[in-house]
Amino acid sequence: MENQSNVVKYRYLGINTQNERVVYMHENCHICISEGFEALTRIRISTLAGSIVASLNVITSNLLLHDEIGLSDAAAKELNVSPNETLYVSHLEPIESLGHVRAKIYNQKLGYRAYNEIITDIVQGNYSNIDLTAFITACAGNRMDLDEITSLTKAMITSGTQLHWNQEIVVDKHCIGGLPGNRTTPLVVAIVAAFGLTMPKTSSRAITSPAGTADTMEVFTNVTLSPEEIKKVVAQEGGCIVWGGTAQLSPADDLLIKIEKALDIDSEGQLIASVLSKKAAAGSTHVVIDIPVGETAKVRSTKMAQELQNHMETIGNAIGLNVKVVITDGTQPVGRGIGPALEALDILKVLKNEADAPKDLTERSLLLAGELLELSGKVDSGTGYQTARELLESGKAYKKFIAICEAQGHFSQPVLAPYKFEVRAKKSGILKIIDNRKIAKLAKLSGAPTAKSAGILLNARLGENIEKGQLLFTIYAESKGELNYALEYKNYHDNIITVI
Amino acid sequence: MENQSNVVKYRYLGINTQNERVVYMHENCHICISEGFEALTRIRISTLAGSIVASLNVITSNLLLHDEIGLSDAAAKELNVSPNETLYVSHLEPIESLGHVRAKIYNQKLGYRAYNEIITDIVQGNYSNIDLTAFITACAGNRMDLDEITSLTKAMITSGTQLHWNQEIVVDKHCIGGLPGNRTTPLVVAIVAAFGLTMPKTSSRAITSPAGTADTMEVFTNVTLSPEEIKKVVAQEGGCIVWGGTAQLSPADDLLIKIEKALDIDSEGQLIASVLSKKAAAGSTHVVIDIPVGETAKVRSTKMAQELQNHMETIGNAIGLNVKVVITDGTQPVGRGIGPALEALDILKVLKNEADAPKDLTERSLLLAGELLELSGKVDSGTGYQTARELLESGKAYKKFIAICEAQGHFSQPVLAPYKFEVRAKKSGILKIIDNRKIAKLAKLSGAPTAKSAGILLNARLGENIEKGQLLFTIYAESKGELNYALEYKNYHDNIITVI
Repeated sequence: MENQSNVVKYRYLGINTQNERVVYMHENCHICISEGFEALTRIRISTLAGSIVASLNVITSNLLLHDEIGLSDAAAKELNVSPNETLYVSHLEPIESLGHVRAKIYNQKLGYRAYNEIITDIVQGNYSNIDLTAFITACAGNRMDLDEITSLTKAMITSGTQLHWNQEIVVDKHCIGGLPGNRTTPLVVAIVAAFGLTMPKTSSRAITSPAGTADTMEVFTNVTLSPEEIKKVVAQEGGCIVWGGTAQLSPADDLLIKIEKALDIDSEGQLIASVLSKKAAAGSTHVVIDIPVGETAKVRSTKMAQELQNHMETIGNAIGLNVKVVITDGTQPVGRGIGPALEALDILKVLKNEADAPKDLTERSLLLAGELLELSGKVDSGTGYQTARELLESGKAYKKFIAICEAQGHFSQPVLAPYKFEVRAKKSGILKIIDNRKIAKLAKLSGAPTAKSAGILLNARLGENIEKGQLLFTIYAESKGELNYALEYKNYHDNIITVI
Repeated sequence: MENQSNVVKYRYLGINTQNERVVYMHENCHICISEGFEALTRIRISTLAGSIVASLNVITSNLLLHDEIGLSDAAAKELNVSPNETLYVSHLEPIESLGHVRAKIYNQKLGYRAYNEIITDIVQGNYSNIDLTAFITACAGNRMDLDEITSLTKAMITSGTQLHWNQEIVVDKHCIGGLPGNRTTPLVVAIVAAFGLTMPKTSSRAITSPAGTADTMEVFTNVTLSPEEIKKVVAQEGGCIVWGGTAQLSPADDLLIKIEKALDIDSEGQLIASVLSKKAAAGSTHVVIDIPVGETAKVRSTKMAQELQNHMETIGNAIGLNVKVVITDGTQPVGRGIGPALEALDILKVLKNEADAPKDLTERSLLLAGELLELSGKVDSGTGYQTARELLESGKAYKKFIAICEAQGHFSQPVLAPYKFEVRAKKSGILKIIDNRKIAKLAKLSGAPTAKSAGILLNARLGENIEKGQLLFTIYAESKGELNYALEYKNYHDNIITVI
């Protein structure tokens, strides 16, 4: 199809559509007319070196000449084009794997080949946001069985870079989110790496929460490292804490997560495939998974947690990973801060063994580090927790943490946001309920995680005796607008923290 | 939130994104910075007169000044803005009905209120394409029960204009697609209106097929009429055949159909709600529904057809419509033409009682018109078909058809496309199989329905004795590129028509 009649000249427009690949052509462009293209038509754009698929937006003004073509920033970057470069436009051949997505919509069970074809097309950018959404929705609501989740996981592992560490044991941990402030990962890595185990940790950014581990770590150091840079850090320090996205581990996952974020959903199958594929692609052999359970956490009942535990351990086994799931208390936020910088402050206090370090964060980190030490077989059963405690209290974990941050680029101190509002108790009583979802929502409205220093500082804990007028929590924001927006929500919801 | 700090000036950009409402703001716009907006953030844009919700695309070039805002054509039209007009930008309050969509994704049953809130938000343009896709996918694959489909149908009826005809009996018909060339509607309307019944027919454009009834009728006359214009035509002629979209009947349907088209799916629940809501909103009281059954038709087995029949009659009853479902033969295309103009030619031949009029199209139209006459109670049971036949053979139906077209604006003769390719039999034998899906795909690749005169003319019928070299079918296209694209597909698939 690459004949003279479908040649156009690239013109830079500068439109950021996030990940979506959009192509802009004039309504009077001869190709649009001869080929019958209209807005939203999916078409293929090629250079001599490569090609991409993009959705058409039709220009009805003079933004483009008739023989010019524009691309969204994501599309231009992927195609690597320069102004005035010649591009070739052609009809999109049918994306065969969309047939599997339709089959899944109609409740059919898909096999490994189907998932592999779907994931391959997603990684190549051949799916529109509409296609991605249909795939995610069709797989949500427990519509994938264990075979299918295993197939999806395997397909996601091989879809991107796979790291190898030439180590018999490579440990990792993961927490099934939903618990604001639960930032144990940097602590566990510091402890376990200080022990001498290899723990190349890749973390995600927030999906629907006010902060992901990568967001929090970004307060301290650079988290966007290439696979080569990660290797160097891990070879030097035994551990790292980086964002998994740029490392091109399970790259389909980041595209799927963007849509899940837009929909504010988190499906079990995608969740398991996401977590385990990242672990396996990162070259891990032994993984501890923390599932906090609580009425307002992501997993609301012990029964659901046990099912997830069962599924994760079974699928872990099927793909050759030693998985241990630990079910923990998820009734209230962990630590005091919710939001990247506020959580970073909690982490520092724990590492420095400060008197006012949040005890719950310390204890959870020691528990998980202990489990990981035991799962690795390098310490005797029953001695993991004590070993972890010694590494923390001796300052070895703190030293290791600073060393890891510096190896990743630099170590920076967290700072607080300039705007704040203190929320005080309207009456005396006992602090009975903290609504995790509402607290998380409030932190997001205040700007977290995009505004790194925004979020919520909890000044009281569950079960505490509260005096009228006592400080319950503080809202931090980087702009007045965001502070007002958070306050609007707070004023409308008076049951974020309940004192009875 | 409408203070001085979120005021911007509108600048015309001229970007057609089809239905999607997109807002363009500069990355250095003070609002983006202060509010933490990034690409794909959903935000509210207001004038003093009204407001819309749109997805943000961030301009990284000089297309916009920092205090300017651009809108996609659909968004600008809805907001009715003029260049340099002052616009107000604010955070989007949570779209509450998306909570129901999430519940549906997680397999919960929704009630009338939930569906009504969802449809209301969809009609107001509050859903992004991602939201619409999630809703459609969550409802597909038989995930709605009869109560839910009834609720959705009722919600869709009241979401737009409802027509009233001051007639005790208002008849209508509908065919559950999947059978190329099955263009009985214009014939049934002509016959039934010639009899004296009121039949204000609103039809859809093609969803995934090479032509919808509205596309075919557009070859003859204007099909984009306002409710007032429709009333006038029906008062004068007793019938009309118009596109249902502009009439604002069940307006949510058109938005949902665009996404279904992009996904190439058609879910049972949406299908029933779409058909029955359009009928009820159009003020119909008695409706005959044609379900063609065949291996390559939309409904593939009699069992599936009977289930659909049962569901449609039950839900029809629940919303106060007299519905009769007729299950018909769907093993091969009806008539000879597939594509708007080619089907229009078939219709004319039948109306004019020409010797080479396609018999199957004639017989199907008489059957359905007869059923409709009987369902109305205006002719005795068993005499419908004969009555219909007399109206057609006498030329009364033809006269009525011309009169309806002229009342809708004009009557134009169909013309054939300039480019064609004749496909001939490679060997002698019996024509055993016509693959409806592949024939439809071929017609679409040749340009139908956008290219009105493009499509396929079948020159042979199922069961016919074929000589080697005999003409099997002809591909028509309006451009050489489209003809080549169709030929490429044909050359790759040699089982479109099978001679054994």
